[in-house]
Amino acid sequence: MRVLGIDPGLTRCGVGVVDGAVGRTLTLVAAGAVRTPADEELPARLLGVEQGIEQWLDDYRPDAVAVERVFAQHNVRTVMGTAQAGAIAVVCAARRGLPVALHTPSEVKAAITGSGRADKAQVGAMVARILRLDGPPRPADAADAVALAICHLWRGSAQAHLARARQEFARRIETARQAHGL
Amino acid sequence: MRVLGIDPGLTRCGVGVVDGAVGRTLTLVAAGAVRTPADEELPARLLGVEQGIEQWLDDYRPDAVAVERVFAQHNVRTVMGTAQAGAIAVVCAARRGLPVALHTPSEVKAAITGSGRADKAQVGAMVARILRLDGPPRPADAADAVALAICHLWRGSAQAHLARARQEFARRIETARQAHGL
Repeated sequence: MRVLGIDPGLTRCGVGVVDGAVGRTLTLVAAGAVRTPADEELPARLLGVEQGIEQWLDDYRPDAVAVERVFAQHNVRTVMGTAQAGAIAVVCAARRGLPVALHTPSEVKAAITGSGRADKAQVGAMVARILRLDGPPRPADAADAVALAICHLWRGSAQAHLARARQEFARRIETARQAHGL
Repeated sequence: MRVLGIDPGLTRCGVGVVDGAVGRTLTLVAAGAVRTPADEELPARLLGVEQGIEQWLDDYRPDAVAVERVFAQHNVRTVMGTAQAGAIAVVCAARRGLPVALHTPSEVKAAITGSGRADKAQVGAMVARILRLDGPPRPADAADAVALAICHLWRGSAQAHLARARQEFARRIETARQAHGL
């Protein structure tokens, strides 16, 4: 399964592609950033974000997309650009019928480092370790996007594990019922 | 000139189409709302907003699009949906190469009523009067979208007036210079 993680932003939109599956090691396929010039008007910038994301979707054909869920309690100026760029990313994926998951920053940090309050350096270090890299992907937004993709693969795996465990439990109950003629 | 005004929102995105030109009466062409169900996931809702806006652009072929400029000081929960839906509206127009203008709510109120602090009822009443309607367009978001379109036509006209006045001034200066051999 291939996941495209997107850390939305108008100036730099982090993107990272990770391949992985339950019980297998994860592999970094690509990481980078879609940039738009701060002195351009909003319509041109949003169009630039859309074209950039479309290019990553075309080039890497992910099976799912994970986007950071934005909260309004952050810096108000930044959060507007993040919400706008995030909306474009979500729609690009949804238009292709790709499943889109939204993960909060603390979900990502907790999945990667075990703590929802880990700092950027700690997340970057863990991303590098998990993917067997010499250092965290650059720029920082790319590392955050890769962390999102890892979080999605692991959380998805955890949910798949639980679903299988529930099925196995139901199967055993049924076997026991039949064995005892209940 | 035909302007599509968009008052962005996830639950109800107001839309209004107004025809007009400098020194001519304005005409309401259509008004309504693009709605997405509150119980749907964000990707499906943003896709619904995109499809709705595309439909209005296809049906009415505006020359320009005016979208409400969102500020983060509003209610934080609402503002995220507004920013997201607004980003979709802006990108739909920009993709078609249409000029997109962003007007703040107070710019719209000032253009329509003369006061940047006018309430919704006052704006609705003036929209009805300007367009010679029996009452403001319904729902309320549609009236706001129509007000945006009117604001855009009038501000554009005002800017065009100023540009013409500047040209006329420059022409007279030049004539005077030539007459006096300067």
